[in-house]
Amino acid sequence: MDDTRALSDNSYAGHLNASGATSVGYSDVPALMTGLGRRARQAARRMALASSEQKNAALRAMAASIRTRAASILAANAEDLAEAAATSRTPAFIDRLTLNPERLEAIAEAVESVAALPDPVGRVLARFERPNGLRIERIATPLGVIGVIFESRPNVTADAGALCLKAGNAAILRTGSESFRSALAIADAMGEGLERAGLPADAVRLVPTRDRAAVGAMLTGLDGNLDVIVPRGGRSLVARVQEEARVPVFAHLEGLNHVFVHERADLEMAKAIVLNAKMRRTGVCGSAETLLVDGACAATHLKPLVLMLLDAGCAVRGDAATQAVDPRVTPATEEDWRTEYLDAIISVRVVGGLDEAVAHIETYGSHHTDSIVTDDAAVAEHFLRQVDSAIVLHNASTQFADGGEFGFGAEIGIATGRMHARGPVGVEQLTSFKYHIHGSGQTRP
Amino acid sequence: MDDTRALSDNSYAGHLNASGATSVGYSDVPALMTGLGRRARQAARRMALASSEQKNAALRAMAASIRTRAASILAANAEDLAEAAATSRTPAFIDRLTLNPERLEAIAEAVESVAALPDPVGRVLARFERPNGLRIERIATPLGVIGVIFESRPNVTADAGALCLKAGNAAILRTGSESFRSALAIADAMGEGLERAGLPADAVRLVPTRDRAAVGAMLTGLDGNLDVIVPRGGRSLVARVQEEARVPVFAHLEGLNHVFVHERADLEMAKAIVLNAKMRRTGVCGSAETLLVDGACAATHLKPLVLMLLDAGCAVRGDAATQAVDPRVTPATEEDWRTEYLDAIISVRVVGGLDEAVAHIETYGSHHTDSIVTDDAAVAEHFLRQVDSAIVLHNASTQFADGGEFGFGAEIGIATGRMHARGPVGVEQLTSFKYHIHGSGQTRP
Repeated sequence: MDDTRALSDNSYAGHLNASGATSVGYSDVPALMTGLGRRARQAARRMALASSEQKNAALRAMAASIRTRAASILAANAEDLAEAAATSRTPAFIDRLTLNPERLEAIAEAVESVAALPDPVGRVLARFERPNGLRIERIATPLGVIGVIFESRPNVTADAGALCLKAGNAAILRTGSESFRSALAIADAMGEGLERAGLPADAVRLVPTRDRAAVGAMLTGLDGNLDVIVPRGGRSLVARVQEEARVPVFAHLEGLNHVFVHERADLEMAKAIVLNAKMRRTGVCGSAETLLVDGACAATHLKPLVLMLLDAGCAVRGDAATQAVDPRVTPATEEDWRTEYLDAIISVRVVGGLDEAVAHIETYGSHHTDSIVTDDAAVAEHFLRQVDSAIVLHNASTQFADGGEFGFGAEIGIATGRMHARGPVGVEQLTSFKYHIHGSGQTRP
Repeated sequence: MDDTRALSDNSYAGHLNASGATSVGYSDVPALMTGLGRRARQAARRMALASSEQKNAALRAMAASIRTRAASILAANAEDLAEAAATSRTPAFIDRLTLNPERLEAIAEAVESVAALPDPVGRVLARFERPNGLRIERIATPLGVIGVIFESRPNVTADAGALCLKAGNAAILRTGSESFRSALAIADAMGEGLERAGLPADAVRLVPTRDRAAVGAMLTGLDGNLDVIVPRGGRSLVARVQEEARVPVFAHLEGLNHVFVHERADLEMAKAIVLNAKMRRTGVCGSAETLLVDGACAATHLKPLVLMLLDAGCAVRGDAATQAVDPRVTPATEEDWRTEYLDAIISVRVVGGLDEAVAHIETYGSHHTDSIVTDDAAVAEHFLRQVDSAIVLHNASTQFADGGEFGFGAEIGIATGRMHARGPVGVEQLTSFKYHIHGSGQTRP
């Protein structure tokens, strides 16, 4: 379809007009994106200086606007759904795209819950006094302008926008094409909430076109007006962003997570953790994909673990030792150790102890989340130290890889890079810092 | 000259051969750099797991090697100097390039002083317990492989390598062409020190060619084997790295720093701070380039400040009010507010109070270091909060913008970006983190 025409008279375009951007035609996507970036930067400057009260008032007003505009948001969603129905989408896809009054209320409540989080801006991260009397403080500040590129899930518009705003940032949101109208309706409600709190609506903007060129513009950094990109979605989206972005990216390409059952693992605990790590939800990035069993306990632990998985409906692909356990186990190939199934499938391998387990994880893993089950604290410490993943656990399920489970309140994603943010990216990770120095006339010798 | 031939039988090439890279010809720079990146990544993995004792032993052994190899390092430096003398280099350039026994001893001592710093790796940055009993710790880890691109200052080879090593990283060092032989001799000494401590010499490597294609390879990230680049040098170098690098960069393009003398500034304190900020050393990034004087105190403060600067040998370029103070003041153009002089020149402007001062700094500044002189604590807080610079000072000289003055021990540079590191980049800023989680069998509901 022609985005330009479809959007020419919607409320978002009205916002743009109100901002003095009447000359931006959506057919000129580069100009549109340049303007979006420039206004986001201006908005970010105002947001950085907004008080906690003002930001929280805006979040509450956003939630209120989402509620009062429920009818129009649901109508927009109905249009999205009608279009999606005309294509051959999976039921799961349609389900993620679907809004209803209950889901919309949950979205509003999620925005309110962000208001209830502590303000990450202004925290004193460090404080030290120098021999010359200078008092130096490291103070948390916003990051700036955050670009979020996500799949067709309408709720992400509100979640991501709220988190960025809470940390004093401006957000440029790019939704998947299929949820475009729903996301636009929600973003409009958020803009209204910002303005009601005396803050600029430009602090949370949805890219107002489905044209793919808009993503390209974001990846180049919008003339220096985009500080970081958070891609949320499938592997191909994340891979493209990581490959092409000229600005930092907070993301994980995949969660190829392991559970290592050490020879000193309690079998019942190992069974509970493995079952939960693999089967609680198979489609989340924290799910386990490979089970490593210490050869020293294979005689006692391997068969019960494999049978438990098979009985739970999980397909097991194993090495020779694992295949010997049960005829339902199929052979694992080299490719299996590298595969993030995101499904009820697990690869299982017997390894010759701790070092071989670590070596397997470093060779095949994705540096996301890995767990060891053992009663030996020294072995556990060795594992936690050696495994170079964002999250390493001892005697707990990999499915705890989630900002909410960390107590971060909410997360915009999980990062496996080592720069700035690593692990769950919550509001604290959406901040930077600066140094405040108080003197009494000090000059440098 | 032909680097390939000049280097074919030096000790560095020998190191490469010992590492099994005999097939790398320096004429094939991409292959050379690919191999350098791959071996640095392997070395980084070993460095990440090295104990504090091992790293410090390596640093002390490096210092010892620099001392025992003094004759060959000075001979290499003499060759560099002879080549530089054949070109028309400035005396200051030649001075920076020159080593002598005293300077070499200072280099060795600087490496030893890094050994004496606390180990930034393994610090517990945060610790919290969840209601389900999970104990979560955020632990400092190394960043990985750090690329440092610097001008022809032999000492940077040792300083940068030592700081990267201390934080458990591997370093790939690219020196300016003119100090190539000196830097190579120092890097060889550092490699020897690493090996004496049982650590891989690949953890600190100088790019063994002067071919400019090597810089291009570093900017692309060496196939994912380079995690961050630190450019140290002139504006054009930093600008190129910031423009072209596909990996994060810790840098400042310039230090266009301001001192704002507020109406409630003590005149004597203002004079001392302005004189020091501008004239202590004019060529450092923390030097002030623009003086802003509050219109409300211009009648009493402007003339003494301007006369003091003129009398100290500083050229003053001012707005109309400043020109009226003394005939030696020349007119400041719009370009002056945007110019980092790095010389005994200052631009001076009278502004209509705090907000106009902040607006000037945000318009023309470089987000590096800015200072306010005032007796009004509330005004100072407003300034520190509003000015979006890495370092903001109250009643102190901008020349404190230095890792040593912060108590960081040493710095690899000063960053004005908002991602990961900001302000002085010391060993702590050369680390990342990961989460260690200890459970007792927790599974996620």
